[in-house]
Amino acid sequence: MVKFLHTADWHIGRKLQGKDLLEDQQYVMNNLIRKIDETKPDFLIIAGDLYDRSVPSKEATTLLQELLVKINIEYNIPIFAISGNHDSRERLAIGEAWFSKHKFYLHTRLNQAFDKITIEDTDIYLLPYFEPFEAREYFEDATLTTHNSATKRVIDEIYKNIDMSRINILVAHTFVSGGLETDSEREISVGTIENVAVEIFEKFDYVALGHLHNPNSIKEERIKYSGSPMAYSFSEATQTKGMRLVELTKEIYTEEFISLEQKRKLHNISARYEEVFTKEFQQNFDCKKDYFSMELSGLEGVTDPLPRIKEYYPNTLILKQKRNNNSDIEMKLDKEMLTKSPLELIEGFYSEQTGSELTVGQKQVLVNIIDKVNQDETN
Amino acid sequence: MVKFLHTADWHIGRKLQGKDLLEDQQYVMNNLIRKIDETKPDFLIIAGDLYDRSVPSKEATTLLQELLVKINIEYNIPIFAISGNHDSRERLAIGEAWFSKHKFYLHTRLNQAFDKITIEDTDIYLLPYFEPFEAREYFEDATLTTHNSATKRVIDEIYKNIDMSRINILVAHTFVSGGLETDSEREISVGTIENVAVEIFEKFDYVALGHLHNPNSIKEERIKYSGSPMAYSFSEATQTKGMRLVELTKEIYTEEFISLEQKRKLHNISARYEEVFTKEFQQNFDCKKDYFSMELSGLEGVTDPLPRIKEYYPNTLILKQKRNNNSDIEMKLDKEMLTKSPLELIEGFYSEQTGSELTVGQKQVLVNIIDKVNQDETN
Repeated sequence: MVKFLHTADWHIGRKLQGKDLLEDQQYVMNNLIRKIDETKPDFLIIAGDLYDRSVPSKEATTLLQELLVKINIEYNIPIFAISGNHDSRERLAIGEAWFSKHKFYLHTRLNQAFDKITIEDTDIYLLPYFEPFEAREYFEDATLTTHNSATKRVIDEIYKNIDMSRINILVAHTFVSGGLETDSEREISVGTIENVAVEIFEKFDYVALGHLHNPNSIKEERIKYSGSPMAYSFSEATQTKGMRLVELTKEIYTEEFISLEQKRKLHNISARYEEVFTKEFQQNFDCKKDYFSMELSGLEGVTDPLPRIKEYYPNTLILKQKRNNNSDIEMKLDKEMLTKSPLELIEGFYSEQTGSELTVGQKQVLVNIIDKVNQDETN
Repeated sequence: MVKFLHTADWHIGRKLQGKDLLEDQQYVMNNLIRKIDETKPDFLIIAGDLYDRSVPSKEATTLLQELLVKINIEYNIPIFAISGNHDSRERLAIGEAWFSKHKFYLHTRLNQAFDKITIEDTDIYLLPYFEPFEAREYFEDATLTTHNSATKRVIDEIYKNIDMSRINILVAHTFVSGGLETDSEREISVGTIENVAVEIFEKFDYVALGHLHNPNSIKEERIKYSGSPMAYSFSEATQTKGMRLVELTKEIYTEEFISLEQKRKLHNISARYEEVFTKEFQQNFDCKKDYFSMELSGLEGVTDPLPRIKEYYPNTLILKQKRNNNSDIEMKLDKEMLTKSPLELIEGFYSEQTGSELTVGQKQVLVNIIDKVNQDETN
């Protein structure tokens, strides 16, 4: 029997619409650490995206260190972790040679997926996020062009040496099909949606996934996303946030979702402008504290609505005007997205939001960024 | 008896006039590691500036990790290290809680200087680079306004608990007076030259210093700079580069300077333009390989000398025109430096080097940088 906690997508250093979330992260991660102490698992799994950016800020670096020191050194709980697509594998791997001497196992390179780690009656495989080209190089197989084929090849290689008499756990950071995307993850897959078929994981007793922030992204038993410990976009506002406590033998699987208390809630508001200033409306929220995304009608003739809104809802991070023929516009946008270039889409979005056009300098900055993104994709 | 190696100022990720030195660093650090293996010291001291920048590149990060893993984990040699003024203490400290469990001690904060580390009959104090304001805050003493007064206060605090029956070693990254500066370090102290008096260290059996790149910067016995393992500016071209092997009891002190073989030499050339193309001249150098700073006369009427020079000396990193009344100009410059503002000095240098003036945009960039530097100094 093995008992462990499964978490992922901490994204330490994340911002929400430009708002630094470090204080919220500190709060929710303290709760996560308290739950670890209460449940006393045999180990903790972190399935990628520990940081939000490849070069995290000093503050983010310090917070992640404090969390890992607390769990692994103070509580003496083994950690099994992988790098996600948001992590810089080189920067995350700093110290890894010393971590593993204290049962903090962190894999950041594809070839490490084949080095299973053994803890009592359990074998754990740590597959970090990787791009198909890495599998092409590793296996010298030019046919591995998709995430599905590349991941299948990696898993087949693991299966060659798997001992089916033992409890086998896979940790991976990938987009397993059946998943429901949110805004936080969408950017990754636009243009090249890359699903991995759930069937390839059938020989594992548990697959601890990271990447999608909704814990209920797939409905399989024993193949689970933990989701992120907190909401990282307004499209995640209504999702339950927490981690999974799993108890496992070769025969029996029990699982419990442990919710984590949040410092602030996120709310998507769709209302008339005047309505949001009524006591009746405000009693539904912790107005001074929570994060708000507002889509308001009745803004005609209101020159600068934001100051008044912020007086009541200081953490209003998005303010959009609600059109009467809203659904028509959205329908049109979906079709446009298929035919317009990224630059055209951004230009349209900017003028819709601000009422003015991009300057020549702003356009040039965008062209440079888009070029760089395209270059990075082909590397 | 204790036997240790003293090195400092690795500056991993350094560039020389824009030229990436990582390949040279890899070469010289491999030699350093071979010397560690040959001499089998009880421990290694690294007296600060492990990285060259607060946010090192991925490649620099990877190289430093490989070096430290080799020394501490593969060879199982304890490391005593501190952060220097070039290191980000937060980023360098990543993993420190795990390092110390494997006898790799890395101090990055002032308060850690008072936690001595004991290894057999030796006590080691690790004092990272710090600014006077940190001592003012730590001791709640507003009079600590200079590096000298702040460092003296820290050392006096250490002396309160020092056990003089044991071998006492201090590791520090600071500018001890008597030091000879080079271009690599000068930037630190322009405007506020901050020396620390050598006398305050008298109770230690050995003081392992970092900061100045010339190993012979001070002539004291038992208070030594190791210097950098390689030349990081052309003003360091003629310095011996290596590290110190020290054997120590309470009574006996023996010391050997271990030179490190360099991949490329640096040369300061002062010659006539036509002269550098003669076989006679070229036989003095490894022309295709070494780094050159050239100050040439006889350039009158030569429109674009660099391509022809680079044909013979591809790693020419500086090319200056030698004036006939050279010494007069230098004399004048020294006086000017005392009266002109940083912006004026840069403007003068730019026009002297390029023959044209700074644009308004370029000036604004400089003003912003100078403002930022001044702000940082006061923080």
